[in-house]
Amino acid sequence: MKHHLLNIMSSTAGLVIPCRAAVAWEAGKPLVIEQVEVAPPQAMEVRIKVKYTSLCHTDLYFWESKGQTPLFPRIFGHEAAGIVESVGEGVTELKPGDHVLPVFTGECKECRHCKSEESNMCDLLRINTDRGVMLNDGKSRFSIKGQPINHFLGTSTFSEYTVLHVGCLAKINPSAPLDKVCIVSCGVSTGLGATLNVAKPKRGSIVAVFGLGAVGLAACEGARIAGASKIIGVDLNPNRFEDAKKFGVTDFVNPKDHQKPVQEVLAEMTDGGVDRAIECTGNINAMISAFESVHDGWGVAVLVGVPHKDAIFTTKPINFLNERTLKGTFFGNYKPRTDIPNVVEMYMKKELELDKFLTHRVKFSEINKAFDLMVNGEGLRCIISMDD
Amino acid sequence: MKHHLLNIMSSTAGLVIPCRAAVAWEAGKPLVIEQVEVAPPQAMEVRIKVKYTSLCHTDLYFWESKGQTPLFPRIFGHEAAGIVESVGEGVTELKPGDHVLPVFTGECKECRHCKSEESNMCDLLRINTDRGVMLNDGKSRFSIKGQPINHFLGTSTFSEYTVLHVGCLAKINPSAPLDKVCIVSCGVSTGLGATLNVAKPKRGSIVAVFGLGAVGLAACEGARIAGASKIIGVDLNPNRFEDAKKFGVTDFVNPKDHQKPVQEVLAEMTDGGVDRAIECTGNINAMISAFESVHDGWGVAVLVGVPHKDAIFTTKPINFLNERTLKGTFFGNYKPRTDIPNVVEMYMKKELELDKFLTHRVKFSEINKAFDLMVNGEGLRCIISMDD
Repeated sequence: MKHHLLNIMSSTAGLVIPCRAAVAWEAGKPLVIEQVEVAPPQAMEVRIKVKYTSLCHTDLYFWESKGQTPLFPRIFGHEAAGIVESVGEGVTELKPGDHVLPVFTGECKECRHCKSEESNMCDLLRINTDRGVMLNDGKSRFSIKGQPINHFLGTSTFSEYTVLHVGCLAKINPSAPLDKVCIVSCGVSTGLGATLNVAKPKRGSIVAVFGLGAVGLAACEGARIAGASKIIGVDLNPNRFEDAKKFGVTDFVNPKDHQKPVQEVLAEMTDGGVDRAIECTGNINAMISAFESVHDGWGVAVLVGVPHKDAIFTTKPINFLNERTLKGTFFGNYKPRTDIPNVVEMYMKKELELDKFLTHRVKFSEINKAFDLMVNGEGLRCIISMDD
Repeated sequence: MKHHLLNIMSSTAGLVIPCRAAVAWEAGKPLVIEQVEVAPPQAMEVRIKVKYTSLCHTDLYFWESKGQTPLFPRIFGHEAAGIVESVGEGVTELKPGDHVLPVFTGECKECRHCKSEESNMCDLLRINTDRGVMLNDGKSRFSIKGQPINHFLGTSTFSEYTVLHVGCLAKINPSAPLDKVCIVSCGVSTGLGATLNVAKPKRGSIVAVFGLGAVGLAACEGARIAGASKIIGVDLNPNRFEDAKKFGVTDFVNPKDHQKPVQEVLAEMTDGGVDRAIECTGNINAMISAFESVHDGWGVAVLVGVPHKDAIFTTKPINFLNERTLKGTFFGNYKPRTDIPNVVEMYMKKELELDKFLTHRVKFSEINKAFDLMVNGEGLRCIISMDD
């Protein structure tokens, strides 16, 4: 019995773990690698060893904290992959050694949203950018010499160890390479799911994607997988087209190159409109253009990008009445625990290509380089290796 | 051979038929029963004997002609049932004696829309309110002493005989009572299809319907057939609730009774929002309320009512991003020739109830009474019997 327990429990279970974390002490200031103490997981919580993390715009956005509630010091990071170190009371679905992807929004499996086939907006664990503590006791599991450090999105993966609610962890195939599938935990799934789960283009469709960053290119990847006959990338940056070709983009439209609205340009290119449009910029005008660029009778536009809080969507109602559909999505409509393991399987079966998203790699000690790359718009995803 | 031909051809085939028609000589002025001459059907056209017609708001709207292109003299009418009298060259699908419902929008079966499973917005025969002539030769088939009289919607059913494009006729079960199924040709299908084909509520859903006129009540009827657990009728007229109960409406909300926006009232009644909302008024504020009243995660709102041409739909984009869907529909997404015969079958199988829509009945000679009833908001559908 004791031997068995030793096998399934790690030697650190139940203990505070001291480890390295990249702490943001102030908005917009470089992160500082600090020694932090990570408390053991409480009821329904899991402590994981983060193996790889990457940087996503949402980290940058809340780190810059221009208008958001400032919550510092804080450990950012939410796109990652790791291995379960220990589990708290009541956790039966995961055990030490399991390979997992942390997800910034959770799945309790018991609320109305989790029980709905259509929604992934869990009432209990839905994304909360303003919360810096764990749900169980309203406190942080991170501290430096007794000073609590705020969590971010319930994930805080810029730390060698972190604690999450069990509902925010997807258990994945242990053969999957963690330095690649880590990007499935946020950006890739958001774009991919917007296409595959929400826009659902039929084979042979014409798909337009607004914004060719990582999320937009993941939407293109979804369109490629779905068998789109034409994928039109729309972006203000012409440098993005060459790289976008790797993601199946066949045509490129730069709105700056045209006098007329981009929806008219797309209508002319496609005999009346695209079959599906996916908006990944968050710019309100791009949202309106994306919707108005879909064909009457059957066109579907999907909003992914998060707009400014004061933005207002406007259009003539006849655009709807002519049988167009507008939908929004959150995390590609994937349920974190139920669906994300299958996205990893898509990669394992070589249906989903991830390598082309991985443009940079840095050691954890150089994490600020990843921020610089993103601020300068260089590359798509920078993998941060926690072991190096 | 000759005998056979006599059997399938009517004695009037190829001849001009003199008959009675209700002619609108001027906008807003009472119709006048006149003797008109109805020319034989040309290529791909069919001449029918109208048995019953009813009055729909679209007739009233273009008869009043407040802002629309005035096109007078004109023979209105589009919701009807009749029997084929003769067919023009190239018509193989219909023969004299077939029972048919005229439809104000057509199905050529050859364009991209007709070939799409999703659309019913035929490129060739899509509704055109500004056209007063037939497509084949750009002329009218109606005349009075040589003066052409304009067609309306390609149907002009306020005439004992009328000529239509074959693509605007649904061939129906000859056992169906024409004085009832005539209303399937427009209003009932528009509302019913908005629910069954577009909103698609699951069994047990909560459905809100904005506007309890004939189209809105047909949407309620669709929700009843779909097995909705709660059907909330929203209307400014409290007199409509009692009758609406016959259509499955379980709850009634009059926006005038509340200080707060109706979407908030509905959210409170339903723990966060309705599963489906169907907007049948055409009022832009009702459209916005309908959309904002659906539940996040899975809610779908469907726009049916036609708004003022200058109206602008506005909402915060977060309402979409929280996984709400907004769609518009035209004629309930039914394809006239392919689908409408099945709606008649729904009535024959007693799934669809039509009698409760039929509140009044007048002789053709009293057609102006039907206009008076509609102007005064009395009743739902007034059947006009052409034979009386």
